[in-house]
Amino acid sequence: TVDGDRLWRRLMALAEIGATPKGGCDRQALTELDRQGRELLTRWCEAQGLSVRFDAIGNLFARRTGADDSADPIVIGSHIDTQPTGGKFDGCFGTLAALEVIQTLNDSNIRTARPLELVAWTNEEGCRFSPCMMGSGVFTGKLTLADAHSRTDTKGVTAGEALEAIGYVGVDADCPRRFAGYLEAHIEQGPILEDEGKTIGVVTGALGLKWFDVTVTGMAAHSGSTPMHLRHNALLGATRIVETVECIAQAHQPDGRGTVGAFQVSPNSRNVIPGEVSLSVDFRHSEGRELAAMVAAFERGLEAIAAESGLEIGSRITADYPPQHFDTTCIDAVRRGATAQGYSHRDIVSGAGHDAVFVSDVAPAAMIFIPCEKGISHNEAEYATPEDVSAGANVLLRAALELAGV
Amino acid sequence: TVDGDRLWRRLMALAEIGATPKGGCDRQALTELDRQGRELLTRWCEAQGLSVRFDAIGNLFARRTGADDSADPIVIGSHIDTQPTGGKFDGCFGTLAALEVIQTLNDSNIRTARPLELVAWTNEEGCRFSPCMMGSGVFTGKLTLADAHSRTDTKGVTAGEALEAIGYVGVDADCPRRFAGYLEAHIEQGPILEDEGKTIGVVTGALGLKWFDVTVTGMAAHSGSTPMHLRHNALLGATRIVETVECIAQAHQPDGRGTVGAFQVSPNSRNVIPGEVSLSVDFRHSEGRELAAMVAAFERGLEAIAAESGLEIGSRITADYPPQHFDTTCIDAVRRGATAQGYSHRDIVSGAGHDAVFVSDVAPAAMIFIPCEKGISHNEAEYATPEDVSAGANVLLRAALELAGV
Ligand SMILES: NC(=O)NCCC(=O)O
Ligand SMILES: NC(=O)NCCC(=O)O
Repeated sequence: TVDGDRLWRRLMALAEIGATPKGGCDRQALTELDRQGRELLTRWCEAQGLSVRFDAIGNLFARRTGADDSADPIVIGSHIDTQPTGGKFDGCFGTLAALEVIQTLNDSNIRTARPLELVAWTNEEGCRFSPCMMGSGVFTGKLTLADAHSRTDTKGVTAGEALEAIGYVGVDADCPRRFAGYLEAHIEQGPILEDEGKTIGVVTGALGLKWFDVTVTGMAAHSGSTPMHLRHNALLGATRIVETVECIAQAHQPDGRGTVGAFQVSPNSRNVIPGEVSLSVDFRHSEGRELAAMVAAFERGLEAIAAESGLEIGSRITADYPPQHFDTTCIDAVRRGATAQGYSHRDIVSGAGHDAVFVSDVAPAAMIFIPCEKGISHNEAEYATPEDVSAGANVLLRAALELAGV
Repeated sequence: TVDGDRLWRRLMALAEIGATPKGGCDRQALTELDRQGRELLTRWCEAQGLSVRFDAIGNLFARRTGADDSADPIVIGSHIDTQPTGGKFDGCFGTLAALEVIQTLNDSNIRTARPLELVAWTNEEGCRFSPCMMGSGVFTGKLTLADAHSRTDTKGVTAGEALEAIGYVGVDADCPRRFAGYLEAHIEQGPILEDEGKTIGVVTGALGLKWFDVTVTGMAAHSGSTPMHLRHNALLGATRIVETVECIAQAHQPDGRGTVGAFQVSPNSRNVIPGEVSLSVDFRHSEGRELAAMVAAFERGLEAIAAESGLEIGSRITADYPPQHFDTTCIDAVRRGATAQGYSHRDIVSGAGHDAVFVSDVAPAAMIFIPCEKGISHNEAEYATPEDVSAGANVLLRAALELAGV
């Protein structure tokens, strides 16, 4: 089993880089702090005898040779970039759990048949540079390298420039292009495991997702001098959209989700009737057919609201990923890892997107979830217990050993 | 009758000071541009032989002597400060119509019994420094001078400092403290006159108003990994509040109004369930009893929404003015002014707050409305036709003459 204290100490040490006053972490992708985080990780990896390389989008790989070193590697890891008001665990847990697995093997002089590669994917969070999961997106061909490099932050700096500035433009050929398997440990970022008192989530796949940007246009006017019957209140249309989204999600339980997360009212003044509202809609479901039905109901709903209210409603799709089903062999390895060590567990579908979801398109993959307090993530208050962190790393150790062979 | 061309030219000339690219005006109270506007107005007034003074909050008075110069004056005017993206007419129309009335009397060598005073109230809009109607608020004792002077802009500059910087701290004793009557011409800022094809609104009073700031608190969480039944979505509570406000206003027609104008969602991110929503609520009604009933229904509604949703809902009152009924003599003078000149007109209740609404607490007062295109105001696109501008000034002339006596 892994050394849980050592893993916890590393988690806390990495969180020092970009530590926020409220106990969280702000270490966004491709910043100077990201460089410092990568350097610390590199030092730790090299101290374990791993050879560290990075590819053209900056994904960092650290290799532990195998008995058959020409075999495709088993890859384990996650990401170390954070949200602007992020926590200490999202991404870092999976990356440092991978390092802890490797150090445990070193300490025990265990040699695996296949090589092991630790990976830290570039820009999973997508905050400074969109889209999220940029590194795994380029790796799996969802996004071209040129497209990724051309993305700009709010100051007009491109991701390519930022990557060069921190010195992390590498060479693809130095890195593995084919994985025999990929395992990613992660905090759940949701409340299900905690709610049911389980230690390990055996992640069998991920919800498909469809995102929309919607704009409702009415006419801004004075709230005092405009009678009710002469108004074109964009906020009334927008609230009906919020309710339609909720209603559709409720009608597709237990696996459907529908959320309006971003919501901007213009001119947003106390005594002006809202003339325009922009909002985002996020639908998810584990089944492609159900997701399509939710989207169809939504589009009918928008038409009905526009027709009844006389408001102009425009919408466009901003993200569209089908449900993902992870590889059975990898899932079984995770489940056996949990069972063998007596951890309570349940199968779970990831509601959030992860690098593993992209990787699963090109290689056998699965994930290991541990509970996070109250399901809080993307928040400085994010927390997982030392016991659960250890448990997740132990399951990763067993599953990786099973896949890599001894 | 007035010289409509001259009045129009002055309106356009004043709008040059702070002109915006989109054809509007940004000349906020107590700025350098406000100083320039006041200076131009002062030059015009002095060219008409008026004596210009200002009081301790910077309200500007320009006096035309009367036959009985010790009698209390008839005061006519409005304000010349604008919204940040304001138009050319809001306030400036009433102020320059007053000047045009005085110049017309000068040109015709008409001497009134009572003195006439033109007034330009300080900071009616309340954008850089809250509250709105600051100058008339201090004049009528709604606000102490010390309180008004202590208000700060976003940079921490106080209104007192800004007033001193533009050189407009005057002496109360130099200005009239008692008015025999007050008349204010203004664009309607609403669609009623245009909708009914009327040229003049005989303003009989103003709606009472009650404003609330409401905060709905749930729990921010990941939109993908949080199942519907474990959510505490603040936006769902907020949308129910929007509907409750609408529903209450609809139930109090034709004079009730209810508006949610400001609406801020936090953290306002595409894949985060809203944890908090702050919103403003604006209720108005012409009858105090009805307004109280609307507010009572609203408070019951908030309780019901909190109880049903499990969300925490806090609210506080931020403004509270009773309905205002203008003086019958002043109203009649306005109505006769319109009738005598053959202008189509209707009685109207002002939905918006105005300096006249405050003045009416301490002196006989009324207002004259002219249509504004599509009811658009507080907007660079604000527009009134030259014909309506002339008509409004002509009604002001007749009504002021009637009140001041010849
Ligand atoms: N893990 C995670 O937060 N991914 C971001 C994309 C999503 O909303 O699922
Ligand atoms: N005239 C005007 O826009 N006043 C502002 C206060 C209000 O909302 O009525």
